[in-house]
Amino acid sequence: MSDGRGPEADAPSPGADAPSPGADALSPGAGALSPGDFLRAHGPQAIDWAASYLDRVGTLPVLAQVRPGELSARLPDAAPERGESFEAVLADLDQILLPAVTHWQHPRYFAYFPSNTSAPAILAEMLAATLNNVGFLWRSSPALTELELVVMSWAAQLLGLPSGWHGQIEDGGSTATLTAAIAARRLTGRQKLVCSAETHSSAEKAARMLGMEVRTVGCDAQGRMLVAELGDLSDTALVVATVGTTGRGAVDPVAQIAGACRRHGAWLHVDAAYAGSAMVCPEFRWAFAGVELADSVVVNAHKWMLTPMDCSLLWSSRPEALRDAFSLVAEYLRTPAAEDDWALSEYGPALGRRFRALKLWAVLRCYGREGLQAHIREGVRMAAQFACWVAEAADWELAAERHFGLVCFRHRAGERFNRELLERVNSSGEAFLSHTVIDGRHTLRLASGGLLTTDADMSRVWELLQREALALSRAPGGTAR
Amino acid sequence: MSDGRGPEADAPSPGADAPSPGADALSPGAGALSPGDFLRAHGPQAIDWAASYLDRVGTLPVLAQVRPGELSARLPDAAPERGESFEAVLADLDQILLPAVTHWQHPRYFAYFPSNTSAPAILAEMLAATLNNVGFLWRSSPALTELELVVMSWAAQLLGLPSGWHGQIEDGGSTATLTAAIAARRLTGRQKLVCSAETHSSAEKAARMLGMEVRTVGCDAQGRMLVAELGDLSDTALVVATVGTTGRGAVDPVAQIAGACRRHGAWLHVDAAYAGSAMVCPEFRWAFAGVELADSVVVNAHKWMLTPMDCSLLWSSRPEALRDAFSLVAEYLRTPAAEDDWALSEYGPALGRRFRALKLWAVLRCYGREGLQAHIREGVRMAAQFACWVAEAADWELAAERHFGLVCFRHRAGERFNRELLERVNSSGEAFLSHTVIDGRHTLRLASGGLLTTDADMSRVWELLQREALALSRAPGGTAR
Repeated sequence: MSDGRGPEADAPSPGADAPSPGADALSPGAGALSPGDFLRAHGPQAIDWAASYLDRVGTLPVLAQVRPGELSARLPDAAPERGESFEAVLADLDQILLPAVTHWQHPRYFAYFPSNTSAPAILAEMLAATLNNVGFLWRSSPALTELELVVMSWAAQLLGLPSGWHGQIEDGGSTATLTAAIAARRLTGRQKLVCSAETHSSAEKAARMLGMEVRTVGCDAQGRMLVAELGDLSDTALVVATVGTTGRGAVDPVAQIAGACRRHGAWLHVDAAYAGSAMVCPEFRWAFAGVELADSVVVNAHKWMLTPMDCSLLWSSRPEALRDAFSLVAEYLRTPAAEDDWALSEYGPALGRRFRALKLWAVLRCYGREGLQAHIREGVRMAAQFACWVAEAADWELAAERHFGLVCFRHRAGERFNRELLERVNSSGEAFLSHTVIDGRHTLRLASGGLLTTDADMSRVWELLQREALALSRAPGGTAR
Repeated sequence: MSDGRGPEADAPSPGADAPSPGADALSPGAGALSPGDFLRAHGPQAIDWAASYLDRVGTLPVLAQVRPGELSARLPDAAPERGESFEAVLADLDQILLPAVTHWQHPRYFAYFPSNTSAPAILAEMLAATLNNVGFLWRSSPALTELELVVMSWAAQLLGLPSGWHGQIEDGGSTATLTAAIAARRLTGRQKLVCSAETHSSAEKAARMLGMEVRTVGCDAQGRMLVAELGDLSDTALVVATVGTTGRGAVDPVAQIAGACRRHGAWLHVDAAYAGSAMVCPEFRWAFAGVELADSVVVNAHKWMLTPMDCSLLWSSRPEALRDAFSLVAEYLRTPAAEDDWALSEYGPALGRRFRALKLWAVLRCYGREGLQAHIREGVRMAAQFACWVAEAADWELAAERHFGLVCFRHRAGERFNRELLERVNSSGEAFLSHTVIDGRHTLRLASGGLLTTDADMSRVWELLQREALALSRAPGGTAR
């Protein structure tokens, strides 16, 4: 293998302590060309595959129509001895992998929360993999380090967060919440995490990983944390409040929770993983009231801000507490103090970090504030339209108020009916929805906000739901409640 | 913004609760084209940028020649109001970001450890960002889930690990070690982590994050953990042993450490983040003796296996312990049991995960075993050659035995001389090396293994070191010891 080593290196010299018997036959895949020439040779095919995938994804079944283990059985038991061509990889992606892909970019993907990609971010990810910088010290990539801080400042302004907070990009909301919990425990010396029954499971998972105790407070009928139940927080390291809960999109009363935290010296972590992106529109900022009192806030740009995984935006008003919790400079990492102050590894669990900032930068540049606002507003408008249809249909009901792009609803025909209905809809391949439980009842969740979703897709999923409900009510046993 | 919504959506309809005053002027960047058309329009430019970057990276200064804050000052204070063209982003990447990039793919990048990218992986990352799957449940992406398990099985075979272990891809070595520590504490109910003075700082950081106690045992003159100092491990949750230490590439006696762990019921985590990739060559497998007795092993494919960040391979012989530590199924995540058993979120800290398996699959396919072996052998051969040059030069000395691709060496002219020498070499932009401390003395580290490194680059860095040493010895104060 001799990429980029020039023609004279095409026949590798055997190493002094390492004869290389098989390497005289160069792999036709990656070994025969320099990396630049390989990209020129195969890049256009890959670009074309990506472009045509996004053109046609709406024609594929949304939810993968395979059984567990089916894909594994179709893949070889071992890596090849010799390199294969990139064309073979692309062909297998199409023929073997694609039937096992659940299409998150499908215009009728409505499950969980959206996870948008976008064309500028796709290209930026390719460039990040090309540079392949590892940002653990400032000097290991000043560009990665400083761009991450700068785009986090841009994003804070876009979402109406206070200026001057320390921003960093983590891989996901779970890591962001874990980071906050570690810093809070270190700062307070306390072992308790407080959340609500509607808080995302990552809070409980963080506490379990850290060996912290969890106290769960109740919610009101709208799924909002009951401030009255917070009680004495003097033994609490942190409270996790949510802006846009996973189950139904509820917004906890952040300002009141912040007041309780301040009185008792507890850290307030605001989980706005989903709804945070909507704060780019002033008309949704009511949901961020009080967020300026938080100690940390997380917004997943990889959900609703056109930036693919992994791009979880974590801000903190207490960077010194993060640094106190995470700073650890080994001898081989020591650099001048003027550089150490910048190192992002000082502020979170990871040492190395990818050049995630590049894709967020490309998105913020290529969409601008107006483009992001338009994307959010389209998603909300479509969800509002869908919620109207549900509310006006005799056999259906909204299970909760529609928040942002999330509609929670059910058919009036009862528990088993709704379970079977969801199964039928998802099996059809025409749309993919997920479920939750509200007031003890099985509830369907439709989250809009996909990059490719149109009004026609909203009409079609509504028609699909009605059609499957009708078929189910006519099927033997289908009317069971 | 109307990507993919078809021409009829070009003028966004104002939302019922969200008028969109500015969005009638579409962003020229990302809003005017469908995602597919955007990729067709700008993908070729991005591919060309990546290809020409890899062609010319050897002509750029390796270590970024900027001061802290210099890049930040050149970037705007805020994101643009309206979307900009992708050409503008690429131009700024060239003119503003690139001078602040430390070039990890430069053929004379010898600092820390290599972090290889490769052409197949670059294209696969683009495809992963296109699909943008989020793998937290099997059904959220069967392809992501099953391919990750399959390529981890392929990689285990390539590296000579036992069959049947559970493999998963984490973002980095720090997360992998944290994962092992959490599982070990949960399994044993013990609070102590044992490592050596040469163990990577991520072990101590994991313990600190978790509130665990650290006991550090000494090393022999070659930097290997002293088994005799392990003593009583009956209060120990886990021991972290290293195959290829960060400081000097030393190999701990894994088999003996494993014996001690087994006797006392402690978890053995083997950190082979760097050297693990070399195990694809049978002649280096001596370093993995005893690894079959480990409870978990981590190998960073993003270091020396031609796969860009983030691709940290974590295997465990105790998947049930991982699952016991990390399983947490919220109502909105519940799927049939046959699917739950596959969910990778059950085995580690994160809920969501990227389609990291795609790039590793592309690399293993396009290089094959032979291609990977040739890559490792070339890196080792070049390091061995460099070590010979040092050993034979009167003014220089090896500070430790050369292991794998890592050479630790120093000039004989003393502490301050070596510090200043390293500063001069790195400031030259011709090469980038890092340092460590061995036997209490400042030591230069040269890690070979770059994708683009040739024999000519090795000669050039050796000439550079000699030239700068000569200049320094002639400079005022330069001979100080």
